Amino acid sequence: MTRERLVAGVKAGVTSVHGLIAQGRGEAFDYLIGEQSHPFALTAVEAAAALLLRARHPVISVNGNVAALAPREIVRLATLVGGALEVNIFHSSKRREQAIRSALEEAGATRVLMPTKKAVLPGLDHNRRFIHPEGIAKADVVFVPLEDGDRCEALRAAGKEVITVDLNPLSRTARTATITIVDNLVRCLPLLSERVIALQQLGPASWAKSLSLYHHSRILKAAEEKIRAARS
Amino acid sequence: MTRERLVAGVKAGVTSVHGLIAQGRGEAFDYLIGEQSHPFALTAVEAAAALLLRARHPVISVNGNVAALAPREIVRLATLVGGALEVNIFHSSKRREQAIRSALEEAGATRVLMPTKKAVLPGLDHNRRFIHPEGIAKADVVFVPLEDGDRCEALRAAGKEVITVDLNPLSRTARTATITIVDNLVRCLPLLSERVIALQQLGPASWAKSLSLYHHSRILKAAEEKIRAARS
Repeated sequence: MTRERLVAGVKAGVTSVHGLIAQGRGEAFDYLIGEQSHPFALTAVEAAAALLLRARHPVISVNGNVAALAPREIVRLATLVGGALEVNIFHSSKRREQAIRSALEEAGATRVLMPTKKAVLPGLDHNRRFIHPEGIAKADVVFVPLEDGDRCEALRAAGKEVITVDLNPLSRTARTATITIVDNLVRCLPLLSERVIALQQLGPASWAKSLSLYHHSRILKAAEEKIRAARS
Repeated sequence: MTRERLVAGVKAGVTSVHGLIAQGRGEAFDYLIGEQSHPFALTAVEAAAALLLRARHPVISVNGNVAALAPREIVRLATLVGGALEVNIFHSSKRREQAIRSALEEAGATRVLMPTKKAVLPGLDHNRRFIHPEGIAKADVVFVPLEDGDRCEALRAAGKEVITVDLNPLSRTARTATITIVDNLVRCLPLLSERVIALQQLGPASWAKSLSLYHHSRILKAAEEKIRAARS
Protein backbone atom coordinates (compact mmCIF):
# COMPACT_ATOMS: atom_id res chain seq x y z
CA MET A 1 0.00 0.00 0.00
CA THR A 2 2.82 2.35 0.93
CA ARG A 3 4.51 1.59 -2.37
CA GLU A 4 1.33 2.28 -4.32
CA ARG A 5 1.03 5.66 -2.59
CA LEU A 6 4.51 6.49 -3.82
CA VAL A 7 3.76 5.33 -7.34
CA ALA A 8 0.70 7.61 -7.27
CA GLY A 9 3.04 10.32 -5.92
CA VAL A 10 5.25 9.94 -8.98
CA LYS A 11 2.23 10.27 -11.25
CA ALA A 12 1.05 13.39 -9.41
CA GLY A 13 4.52 14.93 -9.76
CA VAL A 14 5.02 14.93 -5.97
CA THR A 15 7.71 12.26 -5.59
CA SER A 16 11.12 12.37 -7.24
CA VAL A 17 13.21 9.55 -8.63
CA HIS A 18 15.62 10.09 -5.75
CA GLY A 19 12.70 9.91 -3.36
CA LEU A 20 11.84 6.45 -4.64
CA ILE A 21 15.37 5.22 -4.06
CA ALA A 22 15.30 6.70 -0.56
CA GLN A 23 12.05 4.82 0.06
CA GLY A 24 13.76 1.58 -0.91
CA ARG A 25 16.58 2.25 1.55
CA GLY A 26 13.99 2.85 4.24
CA GLU A 27 12.20 -0.38 3.34
CA ALA A 28 15.41 -2.36 3.80
CA PHE A 29 15.95 -0.97 7.29
CA ASP A 30 12.28 -1.44 8.15
CA TYR A 31 12.60 -5.06 7.09
CA LEU A 32 15.63 -5.46 9.36
CA ILE A 33 13.75 -4.12 12.40
CA GLY A 34 10.83 -6.43 11.65
CA GLU A 35 8.44 -3.71 10.38
CA GLN A 36 7.38 -2.81 13.92
CA SER A 37 7.35 0.31 16.07
CA HIS A 38 9.83 -0.64 18.77
CA PRO A 39 10.24 0.86 22.26
CA PHE A 40 13.10 3.07 20.98
CA ALA A 41 10.62 4.57 18.50
CA LEU A 42 7.82 4.98 21.04
CA THR A 43 10.11 6.79 23.48
CA ALA A 44 11.17 9.14 20.68
CA VAL A 45 7.54 9.69 19.65
CA GLU A 46 6.70 10.63 23.26
CA ALA A 47 9.56 13.14 23.44
CA ALA A 48 8.76 14.53 19.98
CA ALA A 49 5.16 15.16 21.02
CA ALA A 50 6.36 17.03 24.10
CA LEU A 51 8.91 19.08 22.17
CA LEU A 52 6.36 20.07 19.53
CA LEU A 53 3.87 21.12 22.22
CA ARG A 54 6.49 23.10 24.14
CA ALA A 55 7.68 24.90 21.00
CA ARG A 56 6.82 28.56 20.53
CA HIS A 57 6.93 28.29 16.78
CA PRO A 58 6.95 24.70 15.50
CA VAL A 59 7.27 24.13 11.76
CA ILE A 60 6.71 20.93 9.82
CA SER A 61 8.93 20.65 6.77
CA VAL A 62 7.40 18.59 3.97
CA ASN A 63 9.20 16.96 1.04
CA GLY A 64 7.89 14.83 -1.82
CA ASN A 65 7.92 11.48 -0.03
CA VAL A 66 6.17 12.86 3.04
CA ALA A 67 3.48 14.47 0.87
CA ALA A 68 3.00 11.24 -1.10
CA LEU A 69 3.06 8.84 1.83
CA ALA A 70 1.14 10.61 4.57
CA PRO A 71 -0.49 13.89 3.48
CA ARG A 72 -3.51 13.65 5.81
CA GLU A 73 -1.50 12.54 8.82
CA ILE A 74 1.06 15.34 8.41
CA VAL A 75 -1.64 18.01 8.02
CA ARG A 76 -3.39 16.62 11.09
CA LEU A 77 -0.20 16.81 13.13
CA ALA A 78 0.41 20.42 12.06
CA THR A 79 -3.11 21.33 13.16
CA LEU A 80 -2.74 19.55 16.51
CA VAL A 81 0.50 21.29 17.42
CA GLY A 82 -0.49 24.63 15.87
CA GLY A 83 2.50 24.44 13.56
CA ALA A 84 3.11 25.77 10.08
CA LEU A 85 3.59 23.46 7.09
CA GLU A 86 6.48 24.43 4.82
CA VAL A 87 7.46 22.79 1.53
CA ASN A 88 11.16 22.06 1.06
CA ILE A 89 12.68 19.70 -1.47
CA PHE A 90 16.20 18.63 -2.29
CA HIS A 91 16.24 18.94 -6.07
CA SER A 92 14.96 22.27 -7.30
CA SER A 93 11.62 22.09 -9.13
CA LYS A 94 8.95 24.77 -8.85
CA ARG A 95 6.51 22.37 -10.42
CA ARG A 96 7.11 19.68 -7.84
CA GLU A 97 6.91 22.23 -5.01
CA GLN A 98 3.48 23.25 -6.30
CA ALA A 99 2.41 19.60 -6.61
CA ILE A 100 3.38 19.04 -2.96
CA ARG A 101 1.46 22.15 -1.92
CA SER A 102 -1.61 20.89 -3.81
CA ALA A 103 -1.32 17.46 -2.18
CA LEU A 104 -1.27 19.09 1.27
CA GLU A 105 -4.20 21.37 0.43
CA GLU A 106 -6.20 18.41 -0.85
CA ALA A 107 -5.44 16.74 2.47
CA GLY A 108 -6.98 19.69 4.31
CA ALA A 109 -4.15 22.19 4.81
CA THR A 110 -5.38 25.79 4.81
CA ARG A 111 -1.95 27.41 4.69
CA VAL A 112 1.19 25.96 3.15
CA LEU A 113 4.37 28.05 3.25
CA MET A 114 6.63 27.89 0.23
CA PRO A 115 10.39 28.52 -0.10
CA THR A 116 11.17 32.21 -0.69
CA LYS A 117 14.30 34.14 -1.55
CA LYS A 118 13.62 36.46 1.40
CA ALA A 119 15.12 34.06 3.92
CA VAL A 120 17.99 31.61 3.72
CA LEU A 121 19.26 28.74 5.85
CA PRO A 122 23.05 29.17 5.93
CA GLY A 123 25.34 26.29 5.05
CA LEU A 124 23.25 24.85 2.22
CA ASP A 125 23.44 25.21 -1.50
CA HIS A 126 20.85 25.02 -4.26
CA ASN A 127 17.18 25.01 -3.61
CA ARG A 128 17.32 23.79 -0.05
CA ARG A 129 18.67 27.06 1.33
CA PHE A 130 15.49 29.01 0.55
CA ILE A 131 13.00 29.12 3.38
CA HIS A 132 9.97 31.14 4.40
CA PRO A 133 10.48 34.11 6.80
CA GLU A 134 7.35 33.18 8.75
CA GLY A 135 8.16 29.46 8.68
CA ILE A 136 11.47 27.67 9.16
CA ALA A 137 13.32 31.00 9.45
CA LYS A 138 11.40 31.79 12.65
CA ALA A 139 10.99 28.24 13.96
CA ASP A 140 12.44 27.06 17.26
CA VAL A 141 11.46 23.42 16.58
CA VAL A 142 11.39 21.87 13.10
CA PHE A 143 9.89 18.47 12.34
CA VAL A 144 11.68 17.20 9.22
CA PRO A 145 10.83 13.57 8.54
CA LEU A 146 12.82 11.68 5.86
CA GLU A 147 15.45 14.39 5.70
CA ASP A 148 19.03 14.41 4.49
CA GLY A 149 22.04 14.94 6.72
CA ASP A 150 23.17 18.31 5.33
CA ARG A 151 19.86 19.98 5.93
CA CYS A 152 19.51 18.48 9.36
CA GLU A 153 22.95 19.82 10.28
CA ALA A 154 22.18 23.27 8.87
CA LEU A 155 18.97 23.48 10.92
CA ARG A 156 20.83 22.49 14.09
CA ALA A 157 23.63 24.97 13.31
CA ALA A 158 20.95 27.67 13.01
CA GLY A 159 20.02 26.92 16.63
CA LYS A 160 16.82 24.99 15.96
CA GLU A 161 15.68 21.82 17.66
CA VAL A 162 15.17 19.13 15.02
CA ILE A 163 12.88 16.11 15.15
CA THR A 164 13.27 13.57 12.37
CA VAL A 165 11.95 10.18 11.29
CA ASP A 166 14.68 7.97 9.84
CA LEU A 167 14.78 4.17 9.60
CA ASN A 168 18.57 4.17 9.51
CA PRO A 169 19.88 4.89 13.02
CA LEU A 170 23.42 5.17 11.64
CA SER A 171 22.61 7.97 9.19
CA ARG A 172 23.94 11.48 9.64
CA THR A 173 20.36 12.76 9.86
CA ALA A 174 19.57 10.34 12.69
CA ARG A 175 22.73 11.29 14.56
CA THR A 176 22.43 15.05 14.04
CA ALA A 177 18.78 15.53 15.02
CA THR A 178 17.69 16.42 18.55
CA ILE A 179 15.13 13.61 18.51
CA THR A 180 15.14 10.73 16.02
CA ILE A 181 12.17 8.44 15.59
CA VAL A 182 13.61 5.25 14.06
CA ASP A 183 10.40 4.02 12.52
CA ASN A 184 8.36 3.91 9.33
CA LEU A 185 6.75 7.33 8.74
CA VAL A 186 3.34 5.88 7.92
CA ARG A 187 3.40 3.79 11.08
CA CYS A 188 4.62 6.44 13.52
CA LEU A 189 2.66 9.54 12.48
CA PRO A 190 -0.68 8.36 13.95
CA LEU A 191 1.16 7.43 17.16
CA LEU A 192 2.70 10.89 17.29
CA SER A 193 -0.65 12.65 16.86
CA GLU A 194 -2.12 10.40 19.56
CA ARG A 195 0.66 11.34 22.00
CA VAL A 196 0.26 15.05 21.17
CA ILE A 197 -3.44 14.84 22.10
CA ALA A 198 -2.69 12.92 25.31
CA LEU A 199 0.12 15.25 26.44
CA GLN A 200 -1.92 18.32 25.63
CA GLN A 201 -4.59 17.09 28.03
CA LEU A 202 -2.01 16.32 30.73
CA GLY A 203 -0.61 19.85 30.40
CA PRO A 204 2.86 21.45 30.32
CA ALA A 205 4.02 19.89 33.59
CA SER A 206 4.04 16.47 31.91
CA TRP A 207 6.12 17.55 28.92
CA ALA A 208 9.41 17.84 30.78
CA LYS A 209 9.03 14.29 32.02
CA SER A 210 8.30 12.94 28.54
CA LEU A 211 11.39 14.74 27.27
CA SER A 212 13.57 13.45 30.10
CA LEU A 213 12.88 9.85 29.08
CA TYR A 214 14.63 10.38 25.75
CA HIS A 215 18.40 9.92 25.56
CA HIS A 216 19.49 10.41 21.98
CA SER A 217 22.57 8.18 21.87
CA ARG A 218 20.92 5.39 23.85
CA ILE A 219 17.88 5.40 21.55
CA LEU A 220 20.06 5.20 18.44
CA LYS A 221 22.14 2.46 20.03
CA ALA A 222 19.00 0.43 20.79
CA ALA A 223 17.84 0.75 17.18
CA GLU A 224 21.29 -0.24 15.94
CA GLU A 225 21.22 -3.35 18.13
CA LYS A 226 17.85 -4.30 16.69
CA ILE A 227 19.24 -4.11 13.16
CA ARG A 228 22.21 -6.23 14.13
CA ALA A 229 19.94 -8.87 15.61
CA ALA A 230 17.97 -9.02 12.33
CA ARG A 231 16.94 -12.47 11.18
CA SER A 232 14.96 -13.74 8.27
CA MET B 1 27.22 7.61 -10.45
CA THR B 2 25.16 4.43 -10.03
CA ARG B 3 22.15 6.55 -9.12
CA GLU B 4 22.60 8.78 -12.15
CA ARG B 5 22.67 5.68 -14.38
CA LEU B 6 19.31 4.68 -12.94
CA VAL B 7 17.87 8.14 -13.39
CA ALA B 8 18.99 7.96 -17.03
CA GLY B 9 17.37 4.50 -17.12
CA VAL B 10 14.06 6.01 -16.06
CA LYS B 11 14.31 8.62 -18.80
CA ALA B 12 15.12 5.94 -21.40
CA GLY B 13 12.10 3.90 -20.27
CA VAL B 14 14.32 1.04 -19.09
CA THR B 15 13.89 1.28 -15.32
CA SER B 16 10.56 1.03 -13.50
CA VAL B 17 9.38 2.84 -10.42
CA HIS B 18 9.57 -0.44 -8.54
CA GLY B 19 13.10 -0.90 -9.83
CA LEU B 20 14.11 2.39 -8.23
CA ILE B 21 12.73 1.31 -4.88
CA ALA B 22 14.56 -2.00 -5.19
CA GLN B 23 17.76 -0.07 -5.88
CA GLY B 24 17.26 1.84 -2.64
CA ARG B 25 16.88 -1.38 -0.70
CA GLY B 26 20.10 -2.62 -2.25
CA GLU B 27 21.86 0.62 -1.34
CA ALA B 28 20.90 0.20 2.30
CA PHE B 29 22.38 -3.29 2.46
CA ASP B 30 25.46 -2.17 0.54
CA TYR B 31 25.93 0.59 3.08
CA LEU B 32 25.69 -1.97 5.88
CA ILE B 33 28.42 -4.16 4.38
CA GLY B 34 30.65 -1.11 3.92
CA GLU B 35 30.26 -0.86 0.12
CA GLN B 36 32.98 -3.45 -0.43
CA SER B 37 33.27 -6.79 -2.22
CA HIS B 38 33.89 -9.12 0.72
CA PRO B 39 35.40 -12.63 0.70
CA PHE B 40 31.89 -14.15 0.73
CA ALA B 41 31.22 -12.30 -2.54
CA LEU B 42 34.56 -13.21 -4.12
CA THR B 43 34.07 -16.92 -3.35
CA ALA B 44 30.62 -16.75 -4.96
CA VAL B 45 32.03 -14.90 -7.98
CA GLU B 46 34.63 -17.64 -8.40
CA ALA B 47 31.99 -20.39 -8.26
CA ALA B 48 29.65 -18.47 -10.56
CA ALA B 49 32.40 -18.12 -13.16
CA ALA B 50 33.02 -21.89 -13.03
CA LEU B 51 29.32 -22.75 -13.23
CA LEU B 52 28.78 -20.45 -16.22
CA LEU B 53 31.78 -21.96 -18.02
CA ARG B 54 30.67 -25.52 -17.26
CA ALA B 55 27.10 -24.85 -18.47
CA ARG B 56 25.96 -26.34 -21.75
CA HIS B 57 23.45 -23.57 -22.32
CA PRO B 58 23.93 -20.57 -20.03
CA VAL B 59 21.42 -17.73 -20.25
CA ILE B 60 21.66 -14.27 -18.75
CA SER B 61 18.28 -12.83 -17.76
CA VAL B 62 18.15 -9.04 -17.93
CA ASN B 63 15.64 -6.75 -16.21
CA GLY B 64 15.36 -2.95 -16.19
CA ASN B 65 17.80 -2.28 -13.39
CA VAL B 66 20.47 -4.55 -14.85
CA ALA B 67 20.10 -2.88 -18.26
CA ALA B 68 20.29 0.58 -16.72
CA LEU B 69 23.14 -0.09 -14.29
CA ALA B 70 25.53 -2.29 -16.24
CA PRO B 71 24.60 -2.79 -19.91
CA ARG B 72 28.18 -3.07 -21.22
CA GLU B 73 29.35 -5.33 -18.40
CA ILE B 74 26.42 -7.73 -18.81
CA VAL B 75 26.85 -7.94 -22.60
CA ARG B 76 30.56 -8.59 -22.09
CA LEU B 77 29.83 -11.40 -19.66
CA ALA B 78 27.36 -13.01 -22.08
CA THR B 79 30.00 -12.92 -24.81
CA LEU B 80 32.70 -14.38 -22.55
CA VAL B 81 30.60 -17.35 -21.45
CA GLY B 82 28.91 -17.81 -24.84
CA GLY B 83 25.52 -17.27 -23.23
CA ALA B 84 22.29 -15.85 -24.54
CA LEU B 85 20.84 -12.58 -23.24
CA GLU B 86 17.10 -12.70 -22.52
CA VAL B 87 14.88 -9.83 -21.43
CA ASN B 88 12.49 -10.54 -18.57
CA ILE B 89 10.72 -7.97 -16.42
CA PHE B 90 8.34 -8.17 -13.50
CA HIS B 91 5.65 -5.69 -14.52
CA SER B 92 4.37 -6.27 -18.03
CA SER B 93 5.31 -3.57 -20.54
CA LYS B 94 6.19 -4.28 -24.15
CA ARG B 95 7.58 -0.79 -24.41
CA ARG B 96 9.96 -1.28 -21.52
CA GLU B 97 11.04 -4.67 -22.84
CA GLN B 98 11.95 -2.99 -26.13
CA ALA B 99 13.80 -0.22 -24.30
CA ILE B 100 15.86 -2.84 -22.44
CA ARG B 101 16.61 -4.64 -25.71
CA SER B 102 17.74 -1.34 -27.26
CA ALA B 103 19.96 -0.59 -24.25
CA LEU B 104 21.64 -3.98 -24.63
CA GLU B 105 22.07 -3.56 -28.38
CA GLU B 106 23.58 -0.12 -27.86
CA ALA B 107 25.97 -1.78 -25.44
CA GLY B 108 27.09 -4.17 -28.16
CA ALA B 109 24.70 -7.13 -27.97
CA THR B 110 24.11 -8.75 -31.35
CA ARG B 111 21.23 -11.00 -30.27
CA VAL B 112 18.75 -10.32 -27.50
CA LEU B 113 16.01 -12.90 -26.85
CA MET B 114 12.59 -11.56 -25.90
CA PRO B 115 9.75 -13.20 -23.94
CA THR B 116 7.49 -15.27 -26.19
CA LYS B 117 4.19 -17.05 -25.67
CA LYS B 118 5.75 -20.21 -27.14
CA ALA B 119 7.40 -21.17 -23.87
CA VAL B 120 6.36 -20.74 -20.26
CA LEU B 121 8.08 -21.05 -16.90
CA PRO B 122 5.58 -22.90 -14.68
CA GLY B 123 4.63 -21.48 -11.30
CA LEU B 124 4.57 -17.82 -12.25
CA ASP B 125 1.79 -15.47 -13.19
CA HIS B 126 1.67 -12.38 -15.37
CA ASN B 127 4.43 -11.37 -17.69
CA ARG B 128 7.17 -13.21 -15.94
CA ARG B 129 6.04 -16.65 -17.08
CA PHE B 130 6.79 -15.99 -20.76
CA ILE B 131 10.23 -17.05 -21.88
CA HIS B 132 12.09 -17.75 -25.10
CA PRO B 133 12.25 -21.39 -26.33
CA GLU B 134 15.91 -20.94 -27.32
CA GLY B 135 16.75 -19.04 -24.15
CA ILE B 136 15.65 -19.65 -20.58
CA ALA B 137 13.42 -22.56 -21.64
CA LYS B 138 16.50 -24.50 -22.79
CA ALA B 139 18.99 -23.18 -20.23
CA ASP B 140 20.74 -25.39 -17.68
CA VAL B 141 22.27 -22.39 -15.88
CA VAL B 142 20.56 -18.99 -15.59
CA PHE B 143 22.28 -15.87 -14.33
CA VAL B 144 19.50 -13.63 -12.93
CA PRO B 145 20.97 -10.69 -11.05
CA LEU B 146 18.61 -8.47 -8.99
CA GLU B 147 15.82 -11.01 -9.21
CA ASP B 148 12.71 -11.60 -7.10
CA GLY B 149 12.12 -14.69 -5.00
CA ASP B 150 9.19 -16.13 -6.97
CA ARG B 151 11.07 -16.20 -10.22
CA CYS B 152 14.18 -17.60 -8.63
CA GLU B 153 12.11 -20.42 -7.09
CA ALA B 154 10.34 -21.14 -10.40
CA LEU B 155 13.67 -21.42 -12.21
CA ARG B 156 15.01 -23.80 -9.56
CA ALA B 157 11.79 -25.83 -9.66
CA ALA B 158 12.26 -26.14 -13.42
CA GLY B 159 15.57 -27.88 -12.70
CA LYS B 160 17.88 -25.00 -13.59
CA GLU B 161 20.94 -23.88 -11.69
CA VAL B 162 20.49 -20.24 -10.71
CA ILE B 163 23.18 -17.63 -10.03
CA THR B 164 22.01 -14.35 -8.58
CA VAL B 165 23.38 -11.07 -7.27
CA ASP B 166 21.52 -9.83 -4.20
CA LEU B 167 22.74 -7.47 -1.48
CA ASN B 168 20.27 -8.91 1.03
CA PRO B 169 21.53 -12.32 2.15
CA LEU B 170 18.25 -12.93 3.99
CA SER B 171 16.06 -12.53 0.90
CA ARG B 172 14.19 -15.44 -0.62
CA THR B 173 16.13 -14.93 -3.85
CA ALA B 174 19.44 -15.17 -2.02
CA ARG B 175 18.34 -18.30 -0.19
CA THR B 176 16.77 -20.04 -3.19
CA ALA B 177 19.57 -19.56 -5.73
CA THR B 178 22.31 -22.14 -6.31
CA ILE B 179 24.97 -19.44 -6.01
CA THR B 180 24.37 -15.99 -4.51
CA ILE B 181 26.83 -13.15 -4.92
CA VAL B 182 26.07 -10.78 -2.03
CA ASP B 183 27.53 -7.69 -3.62
CA ASN B 184 26.71 -4.59 -5.61
CA LEU B 185 26.05 -5.54 -9.26
CA VAL B 186 28.20 -2.74 -10.65
CA ARG B 187 31.08 -3.77 -8.41
CA CYS B 188 30.95 -7.53 -8.96
CA LEU B 189 30.33 -7.84 -12.72
CA PRO B 190 33.88 -6.83 -13.75
CA LEU B 191 35.23 -9.26 -11.14
CA LEU B 192 33.04 -12.01 -12.56
CA SER B 193 34.22 -11.40 -16.14
CA GLU B 194 37.81 -11.38 -14.90
CA ARG B 195 37.36 -14.76 -13.20
CA VAL B 196 35.66 -16.21 -16.30
CA ILE B 197 38.70 -15.27 -18.39
CA ALA B 198 41.12 -16.70 -15.81
CA LEU B 199 39.22 -19.98 -15.35
CA GLN B 200 38.82 -20.41 -19.09
CA GLN B 201 42.61 -20.30 -19.43
CA LEU B 202 43.07 -22.76 -16.58
CA GLY B 203 40.64 -25.17 -18.25
CA PRO B 204 37.78 -27.45 -17.10
CA ALA B 205 39.83 -29.28 -14.47
CA SER B 206 39.97 -26.09 -12.41
CA TRP B 207 36.23 -25.46 -12.46
CA ALA B 208 35.30 -28.26 -10.08
CA LYS B 209 37.72 -26.88 -7.53
CA SER B 210 36.33 -23.35 -7.82
CA LEU B 211 32.84 -24.77 -7.33
CA SER B 212 33.84 -26.87 -4.34
CA LEU B 213 34.95 -23.74 -2.44
CA TYR B 214 31.39 -22.41 -2.41
CA HIS B 215 29.05 -23.53 0.39
CA HIS B 216 25.76 -21.73 -0.04
CA SER B 217 24.55 -21.56 3.56
CA ARG B 218 28.00 -20.65 4.90
CA ILE B 219 28.37 -17.84 2.37
CA LEU B 220 24.97 -16.40 3.26
CA LYS B 221 25.77 -16.72 6.96
CA ALA B 222 29.03 -14.82 6.49
CA ALA B 223 27.20 -12.01 4.68
CA GLU B 224 24.55 -11.92 7.39
CA GLU B 225 27.27 -11.62 10.06
CA LYS B 226 28.80 -8.70 8.20
CA ILE B 227 25.46 -6.89 8.17
CA ARG B 228 25.01 -7.49 11.88
CA ALA B 229 28.45 -6.10 12.60
CA ALA B 230 27.58 -2.93 10.66
CA ARG B 231 28.82 0.30 12.17
CA SER B 232 28.67 3.88 11.12
